[in-house]
Amino acid sequence: MAKDYAKLALEMHEMKKGKISVKSKINILDKDDLSIAYTPGVAQPCLEIYKNEENVYKYTSKGNLVAVVSDGSAVLGLGDIGASASIPVMEGKSILFKEFANVDAFPICLNTNDVDEIVKAVKLLESVFGGINLEDISSPRCIEIEEKLKKELNIPVFHDDQHGTAIVVAAAIINSVKLIEKNIEELEIVINGPGSAGMAIAKILLGMNVKNIVLCNKEGALEEGMSDLNWAQMEIMKVTNLQGEKGNLKDIIKNKDVFIGVSGPNMVTSEMVKTMAKKPVILAMANPTPEIMPDEANAGGAFIVGTGRSDFPNQVNNVLAFPGVFRGALDIRAREINEEMKIAAAYAIANSISEKDITPTHILPNPFNKNVVKNVSEAVKKAAIKTGVNRI
Amino acid sequence: MAKDYAKLALEMHEMKKGKISVKSKINILDKDDLSIAYTPGVAQPCLEIYKNEENVYKYTSKGNLVAVVSDGSAVLGLGDIGASASIPVMEGKSILFKEFANVDAFPICLNTNDVDEIVKAVKLLESVFGGINLEDISSPRCIEIEEKLKKELNIPVFHDDQHGTAIVVAAAIINSVKLIEKNIEELEIVINGPGSAGMAIAKILLGMNVKNIVLCNKEGALEEGMSDLNWAQMEIMKVTNLQGEKGNLKDIIKNKDVFIGVSGPNMVTSEMVKTMAKKPVILAMANPTPEIMPDEANAGGAFIVGTGRSDFPNQVNNVLAFPGVFRGALDIRAREINEEMKIAAAYAIANSISEKDITPTHILPNPFNKNVVKNVSEAVKKAAIKTGVNRI
Repeated sequence: MAKDYAKLALEMHEMKKGKISVKSKINILDKDDLSIAYTPGVAQPCLEIYKNEENVYKYTSKGNLVAVVSDGSAVLGLGDIGASASIPVMEGKSILFKEFANVDAFPICLNTNDVDEIVKAVKLLESVFGGINLEDISSPRCIEIEEKLKKELNIPVFHDDQHGTAIVVAAAIINSVKLIEKNIEELEIVINGPGSAGMAIAKILLGMNVKNIVLCNKEGALEEGMSDLNWAQMEIMKVTNLQGEKGNLKDIIKNKDVFIGVSGPNMVTSEMVKTMAKKPVILAMANPTPEIMPDEANAGGAFIVGTGRSDFPNQVNNVLAFPGVFRGALDIRAREINEEMKIAAAYAIANSISEKDITPTHILPNPFNKNVVKNVSEAVKKAAIKTGVNRI
Repeated sequence: MAKDYAKLALEMHEMKKGKISVKSKINILDKDDLSIAYTPGVAQPCLEIYKNEENVYKYTSKGNLVAVVSDGSAVLGLGDIGASASIPVMEGKSILFKEFANVDAFPICLNTNDVDEIVKAVKLLESVFGGINLEDISSPRCIEIEEKLKKELNIPVFHDDQHGTAIVVAAAIINSVKLIEKNIEELEIVINGPGSAGMAIAKILLGMNVKNIVLCNKEGALEEGMSDLNWAQMEIMKVTNLQGEKGNLKDIIKNKDVFIGVSGPNMVTSEMVKTMAKKPVILAMANPTPEIMPDEANAGGAFIVGTGRSDFPNQVNNVLAFPGVFRGALDIRAREINEEMKIAAAYAIANSISEKDITPTHILPNPFNKNVVKNVSEAVKKAAIKTGVNRI
């Protein structure tokens, strides 16, 4: 019988009264300790920073601190539950940063849904943090917030729901093509669910030279004149579906090599899988119920099936990406986390499994494989240096 | 030879790269841990908070988290050095909270001097924190910010430079009167330096039934028509100097029982001390150079001398107050920290020395006396209950 994680989670959260605490790096045991950590000694590092702003990295915790920023507007599958109710997720994210990559992360849950208020608040907090991880903010506001923050801040800004997901999906595809013996460039891919994650996946794959990507919403392949298209979707349409495919998902999925779902439950049938190209790859990541359950996908002839769930093989889990991405970005004091760094992270995740160990049910490494964070952070650092965004 | 705390502080801050880190209360060692601390289990505490906002205290770290908020506009004696340069102080304050009272405190240094932007940012962050400690914000902006936040927030807001200082000064006076055999009510007190600390000291002493308090600035006793009086000083004038004393500090200090200095170096001479009442009490807290050095004060016949420095007897040190004040306020989930709670804290600090141990050079307890935090937090809790601001 499956464990009752809901019950266990409630018990644990109540017993521990939340998941984070603040730790002092030094003990204060006598007056000398006080005089060095606080007045009068502390004036000296303050003055050194006042003289040269960059010294903030030398004398404070900034260089290892990440803000996990959310307005609670799109929390897990729960929707807009607000800042307070989002805290358990943001504390959870914070401790994953710590446990997986020794990054000190702190929940910044903001009581507003106003884009400019969120941007302003994060900008005011920039001094304290070495990086910003945006989390569970509804689309397309999250894209607007990320773009504005990237322009205004001198520290890396990364929306994990977009880019963390995109990096791990890219890693899954990198290893999948090793099994289906195609080049990435020639893959035909359909992405169902043109939200912020779907669009970020399209962007990273375009950056990896995938030529043919079609994004679908409930009405089918995105096209001009559809109702409810937002500005971000209008943008992505310019660089995807270059062959002008039309029709609903059932039409578009035909002959595709890869189905990527970031939409909702039960959108794909085994009949539809049967119409795909040979050795189809299905990454059905709707949570908790995927676009198609693995057994149905397999019944339709799927060659590789991944989901967002830990109880099936090939879990597409962001924890493979964000700890190492930030570890690398912080270590090299990157000004930003750019597409090259994300692609480098995807290859590093994929290559954390040696080629002989890749099988249709093992295209992604175990998140508890400690090499993953190490490989990802090293790759991210190299890509940062190559693109000149490192500051040390 | 005195230790070179400036040098030691620089070395320590660089070696440790700042003073705070974030600690996870739980280990994440396997998929079960992930499923309980993060998805899917974490959805359950989120939903419980969504249903009832008060559950945020049950399932998150909020109840023990304090934001140490500054804009870096009045840092130590260094002035307006900005948010980044203020971080070492705010990290220092945060670890004092932790080391002295096991309160998890986090530096929130804001890149703005605009009162409304600071109020707005803190309001947006209210979900995460159980209390707000304002720090090193210039006067009278700090008073305005505190008053606005108190109105807008449901968690306690405490400006330590005002109230922490006021509480410890009050404790020093409570024990001083035991030695000079007067009642607090009949004390004649002059406060030099009508900044936010000076005004807060006046307020707490008025709350303790001191009748005659005169505040002085550089021109002398505050009076209508003086240049540069701010709105807060206009307010405090209505309830102090009820006998309408006029003149400069040299005139006003005559026949006073107590001199309280929160101004600048060398404002008082031993000749001036000689003109005070019998057994005069001098609390000269300008830092690093007091209004009068202890040896000069003693030469003028001072009976009790306190300063802000750790290298003289009777250090008026806020660390005697704020850890216990917040410990008590958090434990009882106080909506505010009111005057009754502050006065209770002052008596608790004073009474942490047994009466027989009080001497002119020992009117305040050692900050490393562990009973102080315990006594202060208990007294603050009782006062909170008595005034009905407790929520548990």
